[in-house]
Amino acid sequence: MSLLTHISSPEALRKLPLAQLPLLCTELRAFVLEHTTTKEGHIKSSLGVTELSVALHYAYRTPLDILVWDVGHQAYIHKILTGRKDLFATNRQFGGLSGFTSRAESPYDPFGAGHSSTALSALTGFAEAARLSNTTRQHIAVVGDGAFTGGMHFEAMNYAGERQLDVTLLINNNRTSIDENVGALQKLQSYKTLCQAFGFQFMGEADGHDPAALIRQFKLLKKEKGPRALLIHTQKGKGYPTPTILKEKKKETAETFQEIAGSKLMALAKQYEKLMVISPAMLSGAGLHAFRQRFPERCFDVGIAEQQAVTMAAALAADGFRPVCHLYSTFAQRAYDQIIHDVALQKLPVTFLLDRAGLVGEDGATHHGVFDLSFLNPIPNLTISAPADGHSLNHLLEEALQHTTGPFAIRYPKGESPALAPEESFTKGKGRWVKRGAKKLVISIGAVRPEVLAVIKQGTFAHYDWIYLKPFNKALALEIIHDFAHIITLEEGSSAGGLGQAFAHLLASEGIHKKLSTLSLPDVFVPHGDQEALAKSVGFDATSFKKLLEEL
Amino acid sequence: MSLLTHISSPEALRKLPLAQLPLLCTELRAFVLEHTTTKEGHIKSSLGVTELSVALHYAYRTPLDILVWDVGHQAYIHKILTGRKDLFATNRQFGGLSGFTSRAESPYDPFGAGHSSTALSALTGFAEAARLSNTTRQHIAVVGDGAFTGGMHFEAMNYAGERQLDVTLLINNNRTSIDENVGALQKLQSYKTLCQAFGFQFMGEADGHDPAALIRQFKLLKKEKGPRALLIHTQKGKGYPTPTILKEKKKETAETFQEIAGSKLMALAKQYEKLMVISPAMLSGAGLHAFRQRFPERCFDVGIAEQQAVTMAAALAADGFRPVCHLYSTFAQRAYDQIIHDVALQKLPVTFLLDRAGLVGEDGATHHGVFDLSFLNPIPNLTISAPADGHSLNHLLEEALQHTTGPFAIRYPKGESPALAPEESFTKGKGRWVKRGAKKLVISIGAVRPEVLAVIKQGTFAHYDWIYLKPFNKALALEIIHDFAHIITLEEGSSAGGLGQAFAHLLASEGIHKKLSTLSLPDVFVPHGDQEALAKSVGFDATSFKKLLEEL
Repeated sequence: MSLLTHISSPEALRKLPLAQLPLLCTELRAFVLEHTTTKEGHIKSSLGVTELSVALHYAYRTPLDILVWDVGHQAYIHKILTGRKDLFATNRQFGGLSGFTSRAESPYDPFGAGHSSTALSALTGFAEAARLSNTTRQHIAVVGDGAFTGGMHFEAMNYAGERQLDVTLLINNNRTSIDENVGALQKLQSYKTLCQAFGFQFMGEADGHDPAALIRQFKLLKKEKGPRALLIHTQKGKGYPTPTILKEKKKETAETFQEIAGSKLMALAKQYEKLMVISPAMLSGAGLHAFRQRFPERCFDVGIAEQQAVTMAAALAADGFRPVCHLYSTFAQRAYDQIIHDVALQKLPVTFLLDRAGLVGEDGATHHGVFDLSFLNPIPNLTISAPADGHSLNHLLEEALQHTTGPFAIRYPKGESPALAPEESFTKGKGRWVKRGAKKLVISIGAVRPEVLAVIKQGTFAHYDWIYLKPFNKALALEIIHDFAHIITLEEGSSAGGLGQAFAHLLASEGIHKKLSTLSLPDVFVPHGDQEALAKSVGFDATSFKKLLEEL
Repeated sequence: MSLLTHISSPEALRKLPLAQLPLLCTELRAFVLEHTTTKEGHIKSSLGVTELSVALHYAYRTPLDILVWDVGHQAYIHKILTGRKDLFATNRQFGGLSGFTSRAESPYDPFGAGHSSTALSALTGFAEAARLSNTTRQHIAVVGDGAFTGGMHFEAMNYAGERQLDVTLLINNNRTSIDENVGALQKLQSYKTLCQAFGFQFMGEADGHDPAALIRQFKLLKKEKGPRALLIHTQKGKGYPTPTILKEKKKETAETFQEIAGSKLMALAKQYEKLMVISPAMLSGAGLHAFRQRFPERCFDVGIAEQQAVTMAAALAADGFRPVCHLYSTFAQRAYDQIIHDVALQKLPVTFLLDRAGLVGEDGATHHGVFDLSFLNPIPNLTISAPADGHSLNHLLEEALQHTTGPFAIRYPKGESPALAPEESFTKGKGRWVKRGAKKLVISIGAVRPEVLAVIKQGTFAHYDWIYLKPFNKALALEIIHDFAHIITLEEGSSAGGLGQAFAHLLASEGIHKKLSTLSLPDVFVPHGDQEALAKSVGFDATSFKKLLEEL
């Protein structure tokens, strides 16, 4: 690390002779590999843009020039070069650096991210700002080829082209996003044509692993005006050890929600020949890889394009098919209008699998799936369910396929299904007693953290697994709370419009006097970190929960 | 109406000789003008596609062939030709035909709409369905040039191109959407290049007012395979009487919320030189036409591209500007993720004006702004307010511009500001007593319908105008409810996560025993119709409200 030791800012970097940059890149790759062990996808994305990151900070006057990384997961080298080298070992840890770019972290991150396809849109804002304030600076967005399927990226291209804004679009063509890329744009000619159609000057291609060549190209780009684009070819994971490090042995012993959903959909696909699966570039994470292998013609990956996923599913349903649309909870936010306007309003039987619900851990604030119950609950015609274990997930998937009068949402977290062993079996439209008890009643919806479950099990508390947020079964609610003076609702989501408020509403409107405590997530953007640290920070750890129960 | 009398279905239309089609078009135009008087924009859009509608049903085998009209407001001729002629006079009336296409109305409407840019996305679903079921049929979407700024349209183009789906994209180039079009795509060459970039075969141009020529072109299109596009030039409002019919004299005597917002922003723009206004193609409806005239360089119309509007606003705020982003409440659904991920998470001071909140009347289910309070409430860092009159709107706009620590939403309906005459004046962060009283307390948020206001005024009820949904001022709530045994909350929005649930939550969690009645909109998609009929249908009319108050 002879060079890197002395490079802790872009200013220092710019003093290096060009000839030393390849060595610096070697050291940077080694540094990343030394200090990060998890999230292989992000490490590989970052390694792939090592030379690009170095060249950008070498050629541009960051942070005066505005550099926005789309998604931001590929910014590890950028972070190391911009004053965050010493903190880098804390990457993605609670209290440490974010795995994405973040305005709160550094002036070198003028706009944070996490979700895809926002960079160019943000850049148009900075470019308009510069025009208004007569500021002379460069505006650069690095956008992966995978993000070229997201609608808002095209909205931004159209706008930048129309306004002839002074923006530089660097297309990082590494030919893979999370899943294999989808879209007609993978070909060079298409990028060129597309850029031109939107009024961008297309400046050709560049080798993303030749820092000197990149710097030369950037100098040319800087001389141009108006919207311009350069296609940069990189190899994702360049420098990542091959044969790849053995993946960490799976910690899970039980089946995961994802595995259960995947297997069940395979079984249901045999039963329902009209069953289709649709995913916006997340088939692997969904546990649907095997489904795609087995039923390739019934499995649609639309790319990072949630709006397209949902409205296409709506049309499939309108034509008599039974689409199952898998969305990460956080990305469902991208298709909110489509869920309302194209699916629910038309009462179309689309099954929504809302995966990665609740706190997701190291991905942090941009990725927690915590708003879903709140934003789905006002939508008419929609059934909203959340299984606490794989057993219910199986039943809910069956029910969703039987349900033909409107959409059906099933929300579950990442990871293994807890061993719930309820006293009652699953009954359609109802919840179930996990444990009867005499003292206080805990009503939970969806998966409950094992440490919280353990607390409930230890005491004399009763525990009811509510399952269906919507339609809210008022009669059932009145029945189960009848014998209890103290009720605790539990949901890993926002308070507004969730289970706790539904019960509060019931009590107040029925004039029932009982003690109610609603445990939900606090009204803040929860940061990143391991699940244990996050649970503690929001009161979902054993100690906090125990205290809450005892204080009631 | 010698021809039209005999044409009540496309089958009948197809028996006409080609030479009679121009006469039929003349009759159709006359019929539309005879039976519709309101919503000039929709009439003009429909008149502009008279020949196109006739030619489509003449050349294609609808409803076997799938014909999807984007937005659907231009489908009047289509409706008249497809069995809805006799009902046409009920267009946009309560219980009558919808102003948009609707699956519930006719098999000739395979996919309903109301919001822009969904048609091609839906068409990809139908095309995949046809491929899967080996159905031979045509798939046609008619998409206006205005919709070519919406991200989901590009997502669909990309997908259709990649999959080489058998879809026909008819671009209706009438060079105007609601506001003047924005985007680099207005030029023919750009359409051609764009289509080709996405893998569509571009089949040239056509005169949209020559039915025979259109039919010839459609025959050619039908012989092709894969995604193909045709640019059709039409004149919006062709056949609309000139000089145009005098617009109905404005009914409003008081100022409208829109006029008040527009004037106030003009004043604030003088005070805050960093104030910018951003709108996705709705500047006129927003009352911001004068602002654009006065401050053209500080007023951005991004086209129908809500995601771009919001994220660009975020970046402007990140760079020190004070963007005011105006969105129709219903269209804010299109930018939900951007509000969360790009604005609120980064605590950027964007002011959101959520216009057309509550029930909007004749536009109906697709356009009611009724989910906003529910979907915004869970978002951390966001202030949510709703003025009951222009006085508060002015104050809230001032406050929003002073607020620098996060986004600030102001929600208001279309139309005139009621004469509220509250007993208390506006105080930042608090609501105000409209009327003190001894009996029961009505707590409302946002504009209250005059007939409901009158009921409250008549009785001995107290009335509190809550104003701020978020942050929810718990101390204030406890204070104002203290002396009352009966509380009625009132909000023109969904129940889930709204004001009523917030008060229910407060009562239940504080163990306060009071009678609570929460009046909000029912959990259904409210249809279209005049405000009076709609208010009655949802219990917001004087009679229902009086009954509710008295029964408590």
